[in-house]
Amino acid sequence: MTHPVAGSGRPALSATDRTTHRRLREQGRADRADLLAVLRAGFIAHLGVVVDGTPMVIPTSYGFDDDTLYLHGSVASRSLAGAAQACVTITLVDGLVLARSVFEHAVNYRSAMIYGTPRLVTDPAEKLHGLHLLSEHLAPGQWDYARQPSRKELAATSLLALPLAEASVKIRTGPPDDADSPDAALGLWAGELPLVSSWGEPVPDPDLPAGTRVPPHLVARAGTRAFDAGR
Amino acid sequence: MTHPVAGSGRPALSATDRTTHRRLREQGRADRADLLAVLRAGFIAHLGVVVDGTPMVIPTSYGFDDDTLYLHGSVASRSLAGAAQACVTITLVDGLVLARSVFEHAVNYRSAMIYGTPRLVTDPAEKLHGLHLLSEHLAPGQWDYARQPSRKELAATSLLALPLAEASVKIRTGPPDDADSPDAALGLWAGELPLVSSWGEPVPDPDLPAGTRVPPHLVARAGTRAFDAGR
Repeated sequence: MTHPVAGSGRPALSATDRTTHRRLREQGRADRADLLAVLRAGFIAHLGVVVDGTPMVIPTSYGFDDDTLYLHGSVASRSLAGAAQACVTITLVDGLVLARSVFEHAVNYRSAMIYGTPRLVTDPAEKLHGLHLLSEHLAPGQWDYARQPSRKELAATSLLALPLAEASVKIRTGPPDDADSPDAALGLWAGELPLVSSWGEPVPDPDLPAGTRVPPHLVARAGTRAFDAGR
Repeated sequence: MTHPVAGSGRPALSATDRTTHRRLREQGRADRADLLAVLRAGFIAHLGVVVDGTPMVIPTSYGFDDDTLYLHGSVASRSLAGAAQACVTITLVDGLVLARSVFEHAVNYRSAMIYGTPRLVTDPAEKLHGLHLLSEHLAPGQWDYARQPSRKELAATSLLALPLAEASVKIRTGPPDDADSPDAALGLWAGELPLVSSWGEPVPDPDLPAGTRVPPHLVARAGTRAFDAGR
């Protein structure tokens, strides 16, 4: 069951059994724009694969274009030799939801779960494309500044590709839900405690020759908010 | 294969096939103190379970004592009715490692992977104990400040318990690894871009009566570093 998203030319995220939210239905989003916003804001994914019948959840960096998620696959590659299903989850924590009762406490977050069968990228041109996306998403500006991968390095890098086709997005924002409950009469403070992440000042490698200048793209990033794109 | 950790009275983290690092061996830690430090620093876990043969990775909050990890289990409970294996991963990102070559770029992080078969907590006393740990880990001070769970709320809460027995910890810190490579002659800047997370100022629920005072434990937390315990 898919329906087009206005203006995108791409189908909406598919509603399969596993991406249909059973709980907290109001937090579910089905829009491709929401998925891309979560992907833009984060840069670490948790890749879930099944190894010998048991799940394994591996943190890894990622990049993406409109259709495909690219993941560093080295650690997981042993379990992805055949056609193995995966679930990739990206979570951004925006703060704590402090309610009048312990029961109503929650976390404000943005989260995307992407399901599919990762493909090991073997075509050199696609591998370069995927690594470029990954590098520029993690550390914008570094691809052109640093030495780009040699053919040998490219061959030594495992890259996984996962279609951005079957996914669900959940977002919780705002104050607690118990303002109109009997607990409001308790007179307690309630609200949010935001979590704020920023890039710090660049720390030079101690082995760097004195006077090596920090490149402008890193100077510009220091002090900016992280996990903030698309908000 | 276990060996005692001096002073703890508990066995070291077990070295099973799946917790023996195949790559990046130097990043692996086997000490229970390292595991507890990662658990203290984080507060969101990614719970991996297998549903109908495919993996599912769910972000959830957690608490812990010396022996047991407690997780909010509502979303995952459908897949944990029987004895299902799980992998719980907690990841803290400390910054980007900016090398002289794209290939040597990395992420500074602390990560713990805990394997085991989660148990649905049914004993009311243990459930209260686990929820207390979870609440105080997420939002210290709120358990005593807010209204504590009623018997009905306790019954409506799913809590999973996972032994802190089989786990691996990986930590990467410091500058890139290519200071002594031929790339050092490129004269490029290299180092780290730290990621700094802090708790912001409390944001009151718009429905709060004017003049409701922010409790001291929240005032004290605002402005402090997050993900920082045990470093």
